[in-house]
Amino acid sequence: MSGPRRAPGSVVLLSGGMDSATCLALAAREAPPVHALTVLYGQRHATEVARARALARRYRVATHTVLRLPLGGLLASSLTDRRRPLPRGRARPDGAIPSTYVPARNTVLLSIALGLAESRGAGAIYLGINAVDYSGYPDCRPEYLRAFARLARLATRAGVEGHRAPRLVAPLLYKSKADIVRLGERLGVPWALTWSCYAGGPRPCGRCESCRLRARGFAEADVVDPARGGPARRLPRRPTS
Amino acid sequence: MSGPRRAPGSVVLLSGGMDSATCLALAAREAPPVHALTVLYGQRHATEVARARALARRYRVATHTVLRLPLGGLLASSLTDRRRPLPRGRARPDGAIPSTYVPARNTVLLSIALGLAESRGAGAIYLGINAVDYSGYPDCRPEYLRAFARLARLATRAGVEGHRAPRLVAPLLYKSKADIVRLGERLGVPWALTWSCYAGGPRPCGRCESCRLRARGFAEADVVDPARGGPARRLPRRPTS
Repeated sequence: MSGPRRAPGSVVLLSGGMDSATCLALAAREAPPVHALTVLYGQRHATEVARARALARRYRVATHTVLRLPLGGLLASSLTDRRRPLPRGRARPDGAIPSTYVPARNTVLLSIALGLAESRGAGAIYLGINAVDYSGYPDCRPEYLRAFARLARLATRAGVEGHRAPRLVAPLLYKSKADIVRLGERLGVPWALTWSCYAGGPRPCGRCESCRLRARGFAEADVVDPARGGPARRLPRRPTS
Repeated sequence: MSGPRRAPGSVVLLSGGMDSATCLALAAREAPPVHALTVLYGQRHATEVARARALARRYRVATHTVLRLPLGGLLASSLTDRRRPLPRGRARPDGAIPSTYVPARNTVLLSIALGLAESRGAGAIYLGINAVDYSGYPDCRPEYLRAFARLARLATRAGVEGHRAPRLVAPLLYKSKADIVRLGERLGVPWALTWSCYAGGPRPCGRCESCRLRARGFAEADVVDPARGGPARRLPRRPTS
């Protein structure tokens, strides 16, 4: 049994946020069939999952896997541990890594995506990693991504059997948040279905770093964010809770 | 908050097999305190978990995390999918990768170990990866391990803040199974607590590749394997089921 040579199809890491929604829209256009993968690793913003499901339905993915990893008590982060306070705004002196950093998170997510892509014979993994308007996480940098791509070639059948490993596609890597909003607008991303807030309340808190990055992106792109309650440019067909 | 510089302590990937038990014995000696990590990824041989718990108790680890990852239906392998037959013996023409290969398994395990090591401030990750008497899996090769070590430096706070990332320790990488048995004998590894069989029956099947590799290792080292029912050289104080 040999693996795929130039496999069609893709795995999309779908958190339910605006970046992964934009990736999903791109993958659905460029590399169908799409296998969406949502990993719950104990983060506070479980609201994202409902959004991920709604987005997966909207884009008629081939499969959508929602995987619960009980990592909350394991990985030290204010994003997964409710006893730790969330930082407000950009309170990071000297470019220090904020407490919302989840140790090795992207490596865990990508490794599962890699296994899924190899199992399904998908040729690409789309992820909404971003190294411009981001939070200073080490595993969001281009050199990190290159190291993972190299690992992926060695970690899989491809490394032994000589065909191509699933390639990593990070279309947002060098984009500002405003550029992501512009790209999403062109692709028709249903922003109202997406969720960015770290706090996990019924509505976005507007104060956490993720909310601030999102607000600035929409403002700079001169687009009204329908998820913030302004006049919606595009309403979802079936609004989700 | 800066991370550890030269952190003591280690994370040990503990499956309950003879290789990981030998790693545990080494880590307990070289790099305490030990944080044992057992990941259940849907493999057939859940018996290993009871053995992992017994080994963790025996070596008085600081913490033992048993993590259930529902990857069984996700990753295509005869090791995790009961509908697929297990190969018997070394039925691998032309060095093909056997069906027991679990896509990206070691990458998933190592990424979780990396997150745990960073969270606990442990300076080393011990794993019983082996590139000699092994099953031809791509993610057991030295070049794979080097690529992961490089990734680990980039994936963590270490990559940004300039201190050392957890180092990977693979003390069995170039050892034959017989050499592992000899090393384990010197360290006093309680072999009777370990489990190697892929089949998951009440006793080792003696036919799967893992059973055969183990049997050959003990035979070549001229040591009787107490787990195979022969005359035991060393009986566990408290035999486990």
